[in-house]
Amino acid sequence: MNEHSKLAIYVLSDSVGGTASNISNAALSQFPQLECNFKIFSFIREKNQLMNILKKAQEVNAIILHTFVSKTLIHTIHDFCSENDLTCFDILNPIMREISKRTNLQPQFKPGAMHKLDENYFDRIGAMEFAVTYDDGKDPKGFLEADIVILGISRTSKTPLSIYLANQNYKVANLPLMPEAEIPSELWSVDPKKIVGLTNDESILSNIRKERMISYGMNPDTPYSSTERIQKEIRYAETLYAKLGCQIINVANKSIEETAAIIVNSFQAH
Amino acid sequence: MNEHSKLAIYVLSDSVGGTASNISNAALSQFPQLECNFKIFSFIREKNQLMNILKKAQEVNAIILHTFVSKTLIHTIHDFCSENDLTCFDILNPIMREISKRTNLQPQFKPGAMHKLDENYFDRIGAMEFAVTYDDGKDPKGFLEADIVILGISRTSKTPLSIYLANQNYKVANLPLMPEAEIPSELWSVDPKKIVGLTNDESILSNIRKERMISYGMNPDTPYSSTERIQKEIRYAETLYAKLGCQIINVANKSIEETAAIIVNSFQAH
Repeated sequence: MNEHSKLAIYVLSDSVGGTASNISNAALSQFPQLECNFKIFSFIREKNQLMNILKKAQEVNAIILHTFVSKTLIHTIHDFCSENDLTCFDILNPIMREISKRTNLQPQFKPGAMHKLDENYFDRIGAMEFAVTYDDGKDPKGFLEADIVILGISRTSKTPLSIYLANQNYKVANLPLMPEAEIPSELWSVDPKKIVGLTNDESILSNIRKERMISYGMNPDTPYSSTERIQKEIRYAETLYAKLGCQIINVANKSIEETAAIIVNSFQAH
Repeated sequence: MNEHSKLAIYVLSDSVGGTASNISNAALSQFPQLECNFKIFSFIREKNQLMNILKKAQEVNAIILHTFVSKTLIHTIHDFCSENDLTCFDILNPIMREISKRTNLQPQFKPGAMHKLDENYFDRIGAMEFAVTYDDGKDPKGFLEADIVILGISRTSKTPLSIYLANQNYKVANLPLMPEAEIPSELWSVDPKKIVGLTNDESILSNIRKERMISYGMNPDTPYSSTERIQKEIRYAETLYAKLGCQIINVANKSIEETAAIIVNSFQAH
């Protein structure tokens, strides 16, 4: 199949293009069998630049999603798409118009305003650096400064989950649990409401560990991947979670986005 | 101002709610002076659950953004909002309908399909773990395995940029540059197209470093924050970048999202 016979989706933005890409991915994930010619055109700020891209879009009859805020670019794309019968979704404008109507405020029409380098941005950058610094129990002092402390046995997605939450401005430290390793004393000084204990299904852990052994060129049936060992680790973690009185999340069949949403929801409920 | 007098924006999702939150944030960033009662309701799967939230939305006359894919929930929200004159933006459906029309494919109507635990998901998790493992030049072997190697002097956002790119499935290693530190020999074996050299404006670096000294309770005018020192570091880095023949990005006044988009665009152009 060549590029011209595939469905084309073009994302056009005066900034990064993250918002419209995200929507496209969400819509496309409902069509898992579909192969799509998906392109992002970012940092479009000039009418000429936009016209060149629109001509390409016309050649492949692309579905267009745009997040322009400049009136000139919005008029240009709107006129071109009407005249040439191209399908175009204007993501931000209808919402901005509704906000204006309700509040009598004028939008600032500033491209990339979401990426302004304000306090919130620098807090987020700081949180990402915090997550890397205090990953994997590297320094238990992090527990006392963290907004969230994540505990979990091997292969419960502690690191990516910490980073994902950092990207939402939470300072996260995590600690791997092993029956043989000592628990840093700092943990007992942390408010249990800030602690999340991760667990996983025995069968999933067993499969992951067997595959890991195979990828090392070893016999998959080692003590590390044995049912007894995994049950021991899960029981050890669950006993600790009960002692701490923390929230417990089973991450089996959950993506980090889903686990993170459960954590954030329970924080907001407190 | 109490919650009822503020503009309310409610995001409703059968999954995490990330897509509609992202759009709301993009629209709201055009109204920096606006204080808004912004709420995310995630994992809505039942009609009753939805009706309870819609009643709350009605009380505060919220602007609603939803990303439901289930027909039942879409009909429920549509009917309720028409009858009660609530403003509701349906984010995904119009796009899904257009894709169906073009391809004659039926969507799978599966909530949270974007978060499926497929190969792409596990690659992304792997990339995030890679970024943490090979952050800050911890192990130069990472340079040879990485998709992107980021170099930069102190305070050029290497760590958060690496993590942000990891979240887009790139395996990223980074190395801090200092005139006194040795360059790991592995770097010279990396394809220069994979290397990105970060730099920053002298005045910005000087301010950041002075503030850092102040936060340590020290005199802001130390050798670390002196113009001579900063110029020396910038010159050292730029000489190295020229020798390597790599891309150079000045991160002054750029968010990590913007810098990442420049890197990804240049990769796609190769």
